[in-house]
Amino acid sequence: MDLYDKISDLGKRRGLFFPAFEIYGGMSGFFNYGPIGSHLKRNIEDAWRQLFVHGEGMVELESTLIMPEQVFQASGHLSHFTDILTKCADCGRAYRVDHLLVERGVPCPEGLTAKALENLLRESGSRCPECDGSLSTAEPFNLMFQVDIGSYGGALRGYGRPEAGQGQFVDFKRIYASERERLPLGVAQVGRCMRNEIAPRKGPLRLREFTIIDYEVFIDPDDLSYPRIRLLKDRPIRLLTAKDQLAKRDEVMEVTVEEALAEGLVKNEVLCYFMALAVRFLKGLGVPPEKQRFREQLLEERAHYSEQTFDQEVWLDRWGWTEVSGHAYRTDYDLRNHMTHSGVDLRVYKAFDKPRTLVKVQTKPLMESLVEDFGSAEGERIARLLTKTDPSIVARELREKGFYEVTGQYPIRVQPRHVEVTREETEAAGRYFVPHVVEPSFGIDRILYTVLEYAYTERGRRIVLSLPRTIAAVKAAVFPLVRRDGLPEFATHVYRRLVEEDFIVKYDESGSIGRRYARADEIGVPLCITVDYQSLEDETMTLRDLYTWKQVRAEASDLPNRLREYFRGKIEFDVLGTAVTSRK
Amino acid sequence: MDLYDKISDLGKRRGLFFPAFEIYGGMSGFFNYGPIGSHLKRNIEDAWRQLFVHGEGMVELESTLIMPEQVFQASGHLSHFTDILTKCADCGRAYRVDHLLVERGVPCPEGLTAKALENLLRESGSRCPECDGSLSTAEPFNLMFQVDIGSYGGALRGYGRPEAGQGQFVDFKRIYASERERLPLGVAQVGRCMRNEIAPRKGPLRLREFTIIDYEVFIDPDDLSYPRIRLLKDRPIRLLTAKDQLAKRDEVMEVTVEEALAEGLVKNEVLCYFMALAVRFLKGLGVPPEKQRFREQLLEERAHYSEQTFDQEVWLDRWGWTEVSGHAYRTDYDLRNHMTHSGVDLRVYKAFDKPRTLVKVQTKPLMESLVEDFGSAEGERIARLLTKTDPSIVARELREKGFYEVTGQYPIRVQPRHVEVTREETEAAGRYFVPHVVEPSFGIDRILYTVLEYAYTERGRRIVLSLPRTIAAVKAAVFPLVRRDGLPEFATHVYRRLVEEDFIVKYDESGSIGRRYARADEIGVPLCITVDYQSLEDETMTLRDLYTWKQVRAEASDLPNRLREYFRGKIEFDVLGTAVTSRK
Repeated sequence: MDLYDKISDLGKRRGLFFPAFEIYGGMSGFFNYGPIGSHLKRNIEDAWRQLFVHGEGMVELESTLIMPEQVFQASGHLSHFTDILTKCADCGRAYRVDHLLVERGVPCPEGLTAKALENLLRESGSRCPECDGSLSTAEPFNLMFQVDIGSYGGALRGYGRPEAGQGQFVDFKRIYASERERLPLGVAQVGRCMRNEIAPRKGPLRLREFTIIDYEVFIDPDDLSYPRIRLLKDRPIRLLTAKDQLAKRDEVMEVTVEEALAEGLVKNEVLCYFMALAVRFLKGLGVPPEKQRFREQLLEERAHYSEQTFDQEVWLDRWGWTEVSGHAYRTDYDLRNHMTHSGVDLRVYKAFDKPRTLVKVQTKPLMESLVEDFGSAEGERIARLLTKTDPSIVARELREKGFYEVTGQYPIRVQPRHVEVTREETEAAGRYFVPHVVEPSFGIDRILYTVLEYAYTERGRRIVLSLPRTIAAVKAAVFPLVRRDGLPEFATHVYRRLVEEDFIVKYDESGSIGRRYARADEIGVPLCITVDYQSLEDETMTLRDLYTWKQVRAEASDLPNRLREYFRGKIEFDVLGTAVTSRK
Repeated sequence: MDLYDKISDLGKRRGLFFPAFEIYGGMSGFFNYGPIGSHLKRNIEDAWRQLFVHGEGMVELESTLIMPEQVFQASGHLSHFTDILTKCADCGRAYRVDHLLVERGVPCPEGLTAKALENLLRESGSRCPECDGSLSTAEPFNLMFQVDIGSYGGALRGYGRPEAGQGQFVDFKRIYASERERLPLGVAQVGRCMRNEIAPRKGPLRLREFTIIDYEVFIDPDDLSYPRIRLLKDRPIRLLTAKDQLAKRDEVMEVTVEEALAEGLVKNEVLCYFMALAVRFLKGLGVPPEKQRFREQLLEERAHYSEQTFDQEVWLDRWGWTEVSGHAYRTDYDLRNHMTHSGVDLRVYKAFDKPRTLVKVQTKPLMESLVEDFGSAEGERIARLLTKTDPSIVARELREKGFYEVTGQYPIRVQPRHVEVTREETEAAGRYFVPHVVEPSFGIDRILYTVLEYAYTERGRRIVLSLPRTIAAVKAAVFPLVRRDGLPEFATHVYRRLVEEDFIVKYDESGSIGRRYARADEIGVPLCITVDYQSLEDETMTLRDLYTWKQVRAEASDLPNRLREYFRGKIEFDVLGTAVTSRK
């Protein structure tokens, strides 16, 4: 049994996590969280909120999971969020082409077109792994779950969101206004997402339904600074750059936040600040910094919207380096495209201190060449979309990339010959611009699993789940030493008192004290509180520490307040009472 | 503007809630929560958890939203969770038949079959409200969102869950085992659900995607007691019984919990206990008990699984009495049907103190009559399902109802002639049984809206959202009196200190103090903390109370600990400092 097997076993046995719909045979990519797991998960989410949202003075949103087709036309998910599949001509089973190729040892770089993959597939001579039938075609398959909204008369197409962030983009104007038009403005969303993965393996790491934290930090592209970075500038951060990966140097370099920025390794302060905060976050969850690294994504790996992306990876026993968060510089991609598709101006306005001379860019779609290349109806539609776009962005993209991509059912590349760009100097009191976005994004299911791996220890034949006390699901267990002489009554009183003070506590009176300790250790209960005969006399109790198994004797009075400090990580176990020589 | 309009307006302006996908024109039945709303929502959920889960020593589950078809075949949702629709023969638009009838003043009792509704529709002479086309048919339309799981080769059908509770039923065995086989065992789930409502109106009250708390309390059918009921036995509870409704007496009777049980108005202690707790819950959220009542559902209103259901209703300004929670006695319906469909034994075992003589029931499907009535293949399938069911339940249902209903794509009623029942006395050391379930179920979106209605007040031209301090989204706002002389620096220091103590705090230095108070009042910030010149000398600050606008002068030292007590509702505003004569 490797560590994953051990944790899965513990997960099923003690209510951490287990496959969904087990009684119906389960279905890969779907997991549920039991009593301990669901609580631990929420504590991890709250720890994230405390650090990234409340600590930074930022905010949160809760948007729907189902969103209409227009949203994903604009976001590019309809055209880009696909896997390339092949289908057996005989048995009809479907496979991911890249998986088949990798299994046959054919190198398969990401980002290849369906056509290119089909060629590789044919060259490799692959056949259906199940029935040996022929595999001849390769087609893109969209990974979103599609739903019909409304009745059979007038249903509209919608999709389960594959990421949460589109909520923030679509609602940007509302939130920007209610937050009194400040930038940088971080808007987080903690919620479920859905992806129709073809053949998800890797247990709880590759899910069809999962919890994501998408954190969209809107910034002024002319001011990518983040003043609070001075607080973290000396923090070390471990990078594996794209450049080093291309040169086959897979060695991590450790630099400070300040150095990473000075050397241009990370593109801007906001991106870098939250990467450093992500290291602190995982450290707080029990993952040592040396078991973390940021791997920069190569050009061909990057999502369609990103200018620079780092994957925060952690070392896992079975799977090696595994992504648990992504840090992408999404630029103005999303807001710009929602602006184009909705026709709603999503730009913000910033007044200058005094009027300035600006270059005002204007664009005019050239109908003749649009119609020539796309046909009459489509040419007109593209022209309409272009007029709703920020002209300065169209001009910039045409200049920098040689084309401007319009999202939709399929992506359209507008060329310089399709648009006339004019520039004019004007006096302006301020400027309109589409905010840029830096997006740290965390996979909570993976992080939870990672936390379990780093907390899992064995002492002799006993499992001890050394969860950090700040996130432990159950904070304390209360035991009467024996089940008689009024000890259960007093222990129940202690238990109720802690419950009323809002602690998550378990009461357990069955079996020997040793077995009760063992049960508590398995689910990572930081404190075990035992009531004994002495308790009846002087209201003191024995507190036992999960991590060291040390014991102290503490008084009942004022215990709640001190425990509160203890579970917030402000005071240590030793000061909760006077040391007791462990009687084992 | 009525109260709903005012709250909607405030909701949009201050980030409470607003229609989803507004920039794409919105879509009825989808709402989002902004920065203040999402936080308030979470606080309401946590208040519920504290009361119903942690306070009762119960647990929680987090299961997937998408579930495979088998789950809803077993649960009865595939066959029962439908609206009856008609479709215009000309324009193709679809309508709910009951809505059309009610709009024409035709009385339309719930629970009518499609055929009966079609007749009423024809008799009423209804035509398409949009194009005056003919409406001739009426057909059931399932309200679940359907999805395909997997790729085009081998997709499996699944559905977005219309209620959360099926997760608890499907996972019952795991949770029962990890909770060491105790009953009663309450398993809660707070999560998103989806219903493809035909034409949802009523803004945030009728949603296609919503947050539900389904609380499945598993109990021993031979012991429906709940010892903690003694704590609430004298609590008043306001009932509108089915009997009184049938007799057209719409007057609420107020009885104590004890009386409700003694008079048989509420079927069991568990059901009644959590109803009383629900009153306390809403009261803590600011809804006075006299604005709450429990309306017993009439036989024809009740869901297919329920033996007795009470709707907890609250009085809303625009909509009158409105359901915010439902309290159903689901009996063994769900576990029994999942047992039948999965073939997994979901019964639990309880040992007797000493062996007892039991009547052991056995059932044998009678193939001849099954085949005669259902055909050969279907008859055999039904026989297979019957053998997986708890025989004592089949026998009981046949005796009490005259049939036993098997769930599935459509419901099947097995008659006494299809089954042979034998009874035999045996000596047994214990018994196997399918637990019964009491289900309190809360609509969080409706509750949040209700909370806003009861918190909304106007003082002169100012809006004051008097949210209970225990659930307020932002707990305190910190203001420097003026923007100079070191006051902003000191106020920022106070702000950061509170943030580090995990309080949700806003810092605001723009505009007059009066405007800042007004902004804080609109989103229900319980405390405004103002730093002035005196603060620089003696580290005292002015605290202003949201509810009374009274002020006290408090010292910075020990403030966090006292605020913690204050926000937990343990101490009152007056004791936070020494009274200040309000200077307005």
